[in-house]
Amino acid sequence: MSKTAGIVIIGNEVLSGKTQDMNSYFLCRELRTLGVEVQRILVIPDEIQLIGKEIVPFSRQWDLVFTTGGVGPTHDDVTMAGIAHGFGVKLIRHYDLERRLHERHGENINQARLKMAEVPEGAELIGEGSLYAPVVRFHNVYIFPGIPKILHERFHVIKERFRDTPFFLKIVYVKEGEGVIASTLNNLLVSFPNLLLGSYPVLGDPSFKVKVTLESKDENYLDQALKKLLDTLPRGAIHQIERK
Amino acid sequence: MSKTAGIVIIGNEVLSGKTQDMNSYFLCRELRTLGVEVQRILVIPDEIQLIGKEIVPFSRQWDLVFTTGGVGPTHDDVTMAGIAHGFGVKLIRHYDLERRLHERHGENINQARLKMAEVPEGAELIGEGSLYAPVVRFHNVYIFPGIPKILHERFHVIKERFRDTPFFLKIVYVKEGEGVIASTLNNLLVSFPNLLLGSYPVLGDPSFKVKVTLESKDENYLDQALKKLLDTLPRGAIHQIERK
Repeated sequence: MSKTAGIVIIGNEVLSGKTQDMNSYFLCRELRTLGVEVQRILVIPDEIQLIGKEIVPFSRQWDLVFTTGGVGPTHDDVTMAGIAHGFGVKLIRHYDLERRLHERHGENINQARLKMAEVPEGAELIGEGSLYAPVVRFHNVYIFPGIPKILHERFHVIKERFRDTPFFLKIVYVKEGEGVIASTLNNLLVSFPNLLLGSYPVLGDPSFKVKVTLESKDENYLDQALKKLLDTLPRGAIHQIERK
Repeated sequence: MSKTAGIVIIGNEVLSGKTQDMNSYFLCRELRTLGVEVQRILVIPDEIQLIGKEIVPFSRQWDLVFTTGGVGPTHDDVTMAGIAHGFGVKLIRHYDLERRLHERHGENINQARLKMAEVPEGAELIGEGSLYAPVVRFHNVYIFPGIPKILHERFHVIKERFRDTPFFLKIVYVKEGEGVIASTLNNLLVSFPNLLLGSYPVLGDPSFKVKVTLESKDENYLDQALKKLLDTLPRGAIHQIERK
């Protein structure tokens, strides 16, 4: 069994179409490379009670939860308060975050800036050594800012702790459409029921019609499944094979 | 009250980081322009029982639900079966979809292709006149394919039925950081509690630091709120104002 993960994107700007969420795609790619299986992505508004209500079941259901957004100094930054509310703990000022803010802002410190030291009681800082601002972890919930550049920097510093057995992936680009190869794929799954098999039609490329993905954490099993697929596809249907 | 909406993206390829979901961003922008308020986006795997379990509460909670993905002819296309399962109805072959598939494929029709005629019992086709393949609606759930180009075409044909009172939006680009303007924004919300106010730090543009968005369905209220914001921001802090 892989480690599982859920991602919660917090931000009205995404729901209202003002901003395209790039963070879930980043996290999905990174986590897949680490061997972690993302099972859900949820995008929710900046509302305290709702954040708690949605994140608590995520925390119970998956090994790891990643949130992005809602951790700045303004009125719509309520992720920490939402998580504290959901788990029924107090929102406290973390002494180390507070110290860093005082160091950074000196006499320009104010209430809004100090809000960025607030965390749910019991939260820990991780990756402190290497980052201006560390990642806040509360139980299995890793709380990141919404700004992609900062998310990327912080994630890369702590990502090794999430590593699991890798997935192996093969991609077969097929010249026939899904309607032609569907039965071949069904038969493949009868022989290889544990194979992660995807079939994705691609428009607008004259050289192939479908991208077929085969994945497994068992490389030998994957090789056998790929061999069977290549043997059973219609003659001449294979455009290209990609092994990762 | 606006019409509300939830979006469900169905696809392992998104969760495993192989494909970036572009459909939720498209739908969020289009729906916002139509005056519809998207309240949730959820990305889930291609699993029949899970699809039903997640879509039924979405259907109850929001006026409109939009799904993309999982409607092709292969083993991983289980959206229709999932919705039928969730609502406790049969998966049936829709006579009109079946007729279209026979017309299209002639003697090359097969079981896989006929799978694309399957819908939950009680589903209706909409937008038939103008599209090769119509949109399938089941109760308040609008079921779209995952291929962006096809989603766009079909959505544009039927979108007028979703139109509601429009949102008005003003954007103020501010030269000061969030830590400086947070109290001004808080005060603005005391005076205009119904204002939809967003504050988004932007890195890497030397001409401003924060994008502040003000929105309302009441244009007069919005104008008054914008005036108050412009009057109360620090002198010289305004880089640019955008009125939409």
